[in-house]
Amino acid sequence: MTIELNSPLDMHLHLRDHEMLNVVAPLTSHSFAGALIMPNLVPPIETLDALLAYKERILTVTKNDIFKPYMTLFFRDSYDYDFLKSFGSELSAIKLYPAGITTNSEGGVSGFDVKKLSPTLEVMSELGIPLCIHGETNGFVMDREAQFVPIYEKLASAFPRLNIIMEHITTKESVEALERHENLYATITLHHLLITLDDVAGGMLRPHLFCKPIAKRPHDRDALLDVALSAHPKVMFGSDSAPHPKHAKESCGCAAGVFTAPLALAKLAEIFMEKSSVANLQKFVSDNARAIYNITPLSKKVILEDNPMNVPHNYGEVVPMYAGESISWSIKSIE
Amino acid sequence: MTIELNSPLDMHLHLRDHEMLNVVAPLTSHSFAGALIMPNLVPPIETLDALLAYKERILTVTKNDIFKPYMTLFFRDSYDYDFLKSFGSELSAIKLYPAGITTNSEGGVSGFDVKKLSPTLEVMSELGIPLCIHGETNGFVMDREAQFVPIYEKLASAFPRLNIIMEHITTKESVEALERHENLYATITLHHLLITLDDVAGGMLRPHLFCKPIAKRPHDRDALLDVALSAHPKVMFGSDSAPHPKHAKESCGCAAGVFTAPLALAKLAEIFMEKSSVANLQKFVSDNARAIYNITPLSKKVILEDNPMNVPHNYGEVVPMYAGESISWSIKSIE
Repeated sequence: MTIELNSPLDMHLHLRDHEMLNVVAPLTSHSFAGALIMPNLVPPIETLDALLAYKERILTVTKNDIFKPYMTLFFRDSYDYDFLKSFGSELSAIKLYPAGITTNSEGGVSGFDVKKLSPTLEVMSELGIPLCIHGETNGFVMDREAQFVPIYEKLASAFPRLNIIMEHITTKESVEALERHENLYATITLHHLLITLDDVAGGMLRPHLFCKPIAKRPHDRDALLDVALSAHPKVMFGSDSAPHPKHAKESCGCAAGVFTAPLALAKLAEIFMEKSSVANLQKFVSDNARAIYNITPLSKKVILEDNPMNVPHNYGEVVPMYAGESISWSIKSIE
Repeated sequence: MTIELNSPLDMHLHLRDHEMLNVVAPLTSHSFAGALIMPNLVPPIETLDALLAYKERILTVTKNDIFKPYMTLFFRDSYDYDFLKSFGSELSAIKLYPAGITTNSEGGVSGFDVKKLSPTLEVMSELGIPLCIHGETNGFVMDREAQFVPIYEKLASAFPRLNIIMEHITTKESVEALERHENLYATITLHHLLITLDDVAGGMLRPHLFCKPIAKRPHDRDALLDVALSAHPKVMFGSDSAPHPKHAKESCGCAAGVFTAPLALAKLAEIFMEKSSVANLQKFVSDNARAIYNITPLSKKVILEDNPMNVPHNYGEVVPMYAGESISWSIKSIE
């Protein structure tokens, strides 16, 4: 049995830079036609020059594949019309991080004073640049995303022409917010369709499943599965695949992030097949994103088959999800 | 400034065996007059011979100190009157583990069929042997203890003469249950007075703070602090100090347990002083346990002073809580 996917897209991806970029970028460009590249480097991407140079470094590494990096800027409330206009089609979205909430987000936004953010958000509305948000407060870890939902809603109401993407949602509350505002969308990761806090800390502590936002309760995962498997038109796949070296995951202060890029499509095929939803996979991994971002991806056909994939123990220094385990689907060919 | 404690007791302690016993037992016997020793060795303690031999191994290691190990058996529903009677005063309590819920608990009780447990619990009631329970279900990790409260209550109602100790409680629900049944008591650890899930997984993942039951929400910690600081007569200190080698904590599947034995009294002094509750510390770390267990501990006077203690990075292979940090109180002398 096979599944054919046309131009799969990963709408939330961390490629990092330098050596790590060299290791992980080809693992995405091999099977995806494009990906939205997060800007949280050190320092973050906040100029056209930095964005173009980063894009160039990505394309140098991925040149053997049909692959387009959709580039993003790190949100600053100082961005004005002329500045953002100058990016033209090079800019696909702007990513807003609350300060200090995840890897390399120390320089992000502190507090959510809509008034202070307004000038830049107005310009983004006018230029049609989507706003991607890592929506977590600094509250109790299990409540951070749900506490952020009113902020999502406040922004969505204040800027009705601004498309706001709730990134890597993990809660029932975020899923429900999709229905209340036309301009709210969401990405969903692979791992949040699969795990709950039980998998991270219910038995032994499993650092390779530790991520931000942290995996939540079973009913939250069920809510995510519902909208993903039905390919709700406002949700799209975004892996949030985030590589960290093994030593940074297995140490006293383990870094947050799950690395799924090389196995994402195979595992998604397995999940959608098991749940009798395979007819919706094309929408979840590509068509919905095309509509939401108004993009036409490069042409790429990925054929998956029900032949097991054995996930390696590591890719360079990076340990993937399902390391050393088997997934019942795999990529057969790519055209 | 000094605080004098008479015969402090740790009513929930893991000393393990062999090399680990040699490392950790003196760290408790130095400052405590006695401790209730958990029976979850491999294999668990379930005969008089095994119990006496383990006690002997402990006393060999702790012989330089004034210290009494209060011994426990691993609960089996096959224990009958003659068997338990034969232990005489050598047996201080029986510890019941739900199967597979924590370190070396694989052979514990599956399900809680009160009828099946009844004969042994009847005998324990008759002989006045307290029942210590690690009260967690196999449910979602944040709900396991609260879900177990009805089981505590069912047992407390069914065996009104049986003293039941809810071990290392972590939730508001358990604290509230204390008020509803005369024969329900509780131990509280040091670390559950200090941390919430935020400390374990809210920033970086911190394996040395990973324990079972997992630390809960701020309002749960506040409920524990309330009854500890007020020295509620039904609660007593039990460290659940649980040593694991560094490599077992900092690895792919981190073992559960926080090691606090050598710093417990100093940190408790700091907390009770900060919260203006120092007059209750003697009750929390000794007097309440004496009343609940009806014991008269060995005579030992511990003088603490407001002079900083620098916590070592490790004791042998074991990394303690606050490793490399400073606590504002320390032990001045022991008589």
